[in-house]
Amino acid sequence: MKANNQVIFNNYQNEINECLLSITADKPQLQKAVCEAMEYSLSAGGKRLRPMLVLEFCRICGGDYKKYVEIACCIELVHTFSLIHDDLPCMDNDDFRRGRPSCHKVYPESIALLAGDALNTLPFEIITNKALDGTISFETAVKLVNVLSSAIGVNGMIGGQVIDIEAENRKISLDELNLLQSLKTGALIKASCVMGCLIADREDLIHYAERYAENVGRSFQIVDDILDVEGSFEELGKPIGSDKESEKSTYVSILGLEESKKISKVLTDEALKVVENFDNNDFLKDVTEYLLVRKN
Amino acid sequence: MKANNQVIFNNYQNEINECLLSITADKPQLQKAVCEAMEYSLSAGGKRLRPMLVLEFCRICGGDYKKYVEIACCIELVHTFSLIHDDLPCMDNDDFRRGRPSCHKVYPESIALLAGDALNTLPFEIITNKALDGTISFETAVKLVNVLSSAIGVNGMIGGQVIDIEAENRKISLDELNLLQSLKTGALIKASCVMGCLIADREDLIHYAERYAENVGRSFQIVDDILDVEGSFEELGKPIGSDKESEKSTYVSILGLEESKKISKVLTDEALKVVENFDNNDFLKDVTEYLLVRKN
Repeated sequence: MKANNQVIFNNYQNEINECLLSITADKPQLQKAVCEAMEYSLSAGGKRLRPMLVLEFCRICGGDYKKYVEIACCIELVHTFSLIHDDLPCMDNDDFRRGRPSCHKVYPESIALLAGDALNTLPFEIITNKALDGTISFETAVKLVNVLSSAIGVNGMIGGQVIDIEAENRKISLDELNLLQSLKTGALIKASCVMGCLIADREDLIHYAERYAENVGRSFQIVDDILDVEGSFEELGKPIGSDKESEKSTYVSILGLEESKKISKVLTDEALKVVENFDNNDFLKDVTEYLLVRKN
Repeated sequence: MKANNQVIFNNYQNEINECLLSITADKPQLQKAVCEAMEYSLSAGGKRLRPMLVLEFCRICGGDYKKYVEIACCIELVHTFSLIHDDLPCMDNDDFRRGRPSCHKVYPESIALLAGDALNTLPFEIITNKALDGTISFETAVKLVNVLSSAIGVNGMIGGQVIDIEAENRKISLDELNLLQSLKTGALIKASCVMGCLIADREDLIHYAERYAENVGRSFQIVDDILDVEGSFEELGKPIGSDKESEKSTYVSILGLEESKKISKVLTDEALKVVENFDNNDFLKDVTEYLLVRKN
């Protein structure tokens, strides 16, 4: 990434991290346990790609993105909820996440479950508060809630997780894997880009945001699968080779390593082409290329 | 309950049950498992008190309640999500709910978890869809989402569950129990009554709805605690005596049976007084009295 874009990237991350901390700053005494569990998982780091996409799409759509950091963070709340529940013993039973013990390894499982539940609901409170205080219009809030909730539900992220569970211990086709991933990880990435356009009041650009997200989302997942083979624990913050161990169908297991790399490159190039429809796209192009060569 | 009011009660229940079935009617093939788990828990019966309160408050506020059954059902989706997660092994580990095996006894635990998650999100999709199709205004939708999401979160139902977990195996004071219950069961009951006023566009009546709900909500919980001592498996659909077995602090364990009965009667009388501020209140009065003498 170019030096100036790396600065922008870091600034976005800092603003997002600061905002995430402020969201869980207030901890009512008797409910402290769940608030701490939420904060623990929210502060575990991560690239903050999704809220960054909200803000960046808002910016390249001409919006004053600095007013909407809290709304952008809503996507990270949802993403974090999904990680907490994904790691639970009845799901992937993962002890590590982002290099630290999973939420339910630090807090009782019941509290981790409820922390996920609370993070699933909180975004809708935040977005509507932003309409009630006049930051966004009622109409924009309704559209944001609608986009986000559909991206989470049975026809979005949760649906993808279900397909993933149902696909365990059997080989699936490339088509099935594409659908699975377009829901499990793709839906939230797409929602991020669309929400950026909505905040900036540029619904006419949503179709570009969607096409960008479809390509980047799939490329992102293929790179994830590649990193599970080629990455390291130090860089990933979680054990590598877990997909192979669980005999999960991945892009690498279906397409092979070389073909996977080729396709993720093609998808990235396609995403870069779509970005040309936006002005001030230098940063987004750089981020898009970085996502292809990232090490975690 | 008077015969004519029993008819109204049954009509409400039928309309709500029908609508709940229609909400989960569409089951995308690959995500079928989670949709069936949602439907299983939604169709397990129950009094449907919460959506009934939405519709009834809408009606006594002068609203055309028949247009809003789907919105009212959103409250039941949330209630059902909380029951599914409450029953999970890491929570109360309950094998029975409403006389049938719990969701995670019929479906894999992972699917039950995700069914709860999906039911937590779906209401926000439904409410905003109702704004996008013109059934309610954007402003009303924002207010409904705001009321509902705050009632679910850390300062609502989930917060109450956390306090409940933290209170396990120790005696708590009446004040603590009051706070716990006002969040755990009270918040959603209050949200139901408030949402009814919002749909009918009578925000000026919300303060009455809140006072009614506070009294009925607490009385409801006290009666629940009494039934856990005096009820029967056949009537309740779940084992009785579970509170005593788990040494949980309840209204009965803190106040004794007779005092609990006295207080639930006082609270019901207070709720009945508040109802006098509404026209056409005959049905709501009857329901309020029924909640005090119910057997399940």
